[in-house]
Amino acid sequence: MQLQRDRVEAALRQAIPAEWDISPRLREAAAYSLEAGGKRLRPIFVLAAAECAAGDESIHRKAMPFAVAVEMVHTYSLIHDDLPAMDNDDYRRGRLTNHKVFGEAMAILAGDGLLPHAFYEASRAAALGVPAERALAVVSELARYAGLPGMVGGQADDMEGEQGITSLEQLERIHLHKTSDLIAFALRAGGHAAEASDRQLEALGLFGRNVGLAFQIQDDILDVTGEEAKLGKPLGSDERQGKVTYPYLIGLEESRRRVNDLTNEAIEALASAALARTDLLADMARSIMNRDH
Amino acid sequence: MQLQRDRVEAALRQAIPAEWDISPRLREAAAYSLEAGGKRLRPIFVLAAAECAAGDESIHRKAMPFAVAVEMVHTYSLIHDDLPAMDNDDYRRGRLTNHKVFGEAMAILAGDGLLPHAFYEASRAAALGVPAERALAVVSELARYAGLPGMVGGQADDMEGEQGITSLEQLERIHLHKTSDLIAFALRAGGHAAEASDRQLEALGLFGRNVGLAFQIQDDILDVTGEEAKLGKPLGSDERQGKVTYPYLIGLEESRRRVNDLTNEAIEALASAALARTDLLADMARSIMNRDH
Repeated sequence: MQLQRDRVEAALRQAIPAEWDISPRLREAAAYSLEAGGKRLRPIFVLAAAECAAGDESIHRKAMPFAVAVEMVHTYSLIHDDLPAMDNDDYRRGRLTNHKVFGEAMAILAGDGLLPHAFYEASRAAALGVPAERALAVVSELARYAGLPGMVGGQADDMEGEQGITSLEQLERIHLHKTSDLIAFALRAGGHAAEASDRQLEALGLFGRNVGLAFQIQDDILDVTGEEAKLGKPLGSDERQGKVTYPYLIGLEESRRRVNDLTNEAIEALASAALARTDLLADMARSIMNRDH
Repeated sequence: MQLQRDRVEAALRQAIPAEWDISPRLREAAAYSLEAGGKRLRPIFVLAAAECAAGDESIHRKAMPFAVAVEMVHTYSLIHDDLPAMDNDDYRRGRLTNHKVFGEAMAILAGDGLLPHAFYEASRAAALGVPAERALAVVSELARYAGLPGMVGGQADDMEGEQGITSLEQLERIHLHKTSDLIAFALRAGGHAAEASDRQLEALGLFGRNVGLAFQIQDDILDVTGEEAKLGKPLGSDERQGKVTYPYLIGLEESRRRVNDLTNEAIEALASAALARTDLLADMARSIMNRDH
């Protein structure tokens, strides 16, 4: 996985062509957040899904534009989520947030620039041998999973509901859109790169949905039980901010069981889809369940 | 042109599927700005370019998704440009701006949702008979003309340079990206819908570039010489805000000559590209030159 992460990092560094004539400060602001590290979970899921569908890691080359695309969308969403009008965060991953360094206007514009660039990347896959119809399907899915009925809608629900979440259904709905949708997209995009069947795409999407939700619940759990040194942030921030979380609603024990169940359901979803292999994805799902940061 | 505008309005009203499960307040915020009227210049350019390339107005059906896409991008850019951290405008077209009605967070999210939806629209053209390769070319071009090397870059240059513009070259560069790029995209997208040749696409793009610049200079002129009742906004706002404009840099007379020259160059660009007709576009260029609002 470290090798995949290195390849993704290299692709991200080269993604915005050096020869494009872009306002230097804007280019710097976009690169600041794009190259800020992080787990690179979403692009690695794209590559792993493609490899599981194709059975051969040579598929990574065709899938890489989709991997870059999903990380661009994730990065733009973090920049905008951190803005004063949204979550108003000064730090992310131990570094100052984009607007603290470049100002609010430039942070809005950096996000506004990274988002369409994701679609530029997705369209580029056709030049690497992905059929135009598949690249177009990825464009259409990215637009929905990242857009009004997906991630943006989840963020809006989260802002609207901040005080009023009282049921697990409400909380799950928010997480499904805020977090799972983009992960489900990543899995399906990898599948499209390998020209997966509809049945395989559906299984990959369901895997992504469940793993995304497990990831989010594990986040909530770690905020209560984790180690600050490993997390790189203070514990108990959810409680201090009055955030409604899984442990708050159903307790720690039941939250852990939910992560376990979702992980098993994710892995089972892959079993009947006749993929060339499933171990890469199953291992990633288990490591998300067992992560301590 | 009124007929085309009505068709565009109808398409915009139906663009975000009613059956999509979207946070109601977010849907309302997106619709508020999308249905706020305006000239609908960009989508009408898409339809006119398609018709001039194809020679038949039945092409409008295939071109309409691109028309909707370009207006979605234009609308998102207005919402974000009006934000307090950007131009901090309370009114647009005589109505309260998005963030004054829905709050800053929801306005950011409405823009963030309309932008990917433009790519959803563009990808939809394939289902109406536009070849997948052409739809994908439109996606790629929209990503660039609206993105970091295009409109967003122009906005960043504008914010960065606000105090320091001293030459016509600097001012023109900003307007070419802020305004012309999206209009040039509109013309090329219409061409792609009609499966235009590279030479035709180039001519359409050049027409759009020149008309876009003429449009912007005419805007600057009208802010000095227009009638408030027709413009729907107070005169002299550029001067009060200390904005560097064409009349400020080269005077009114020379600015008028520049609009005239650009319009003629735009129309000439079409002449040698063997389009089925050019009159629709030439008429639009002339009406932009002669507009009083």
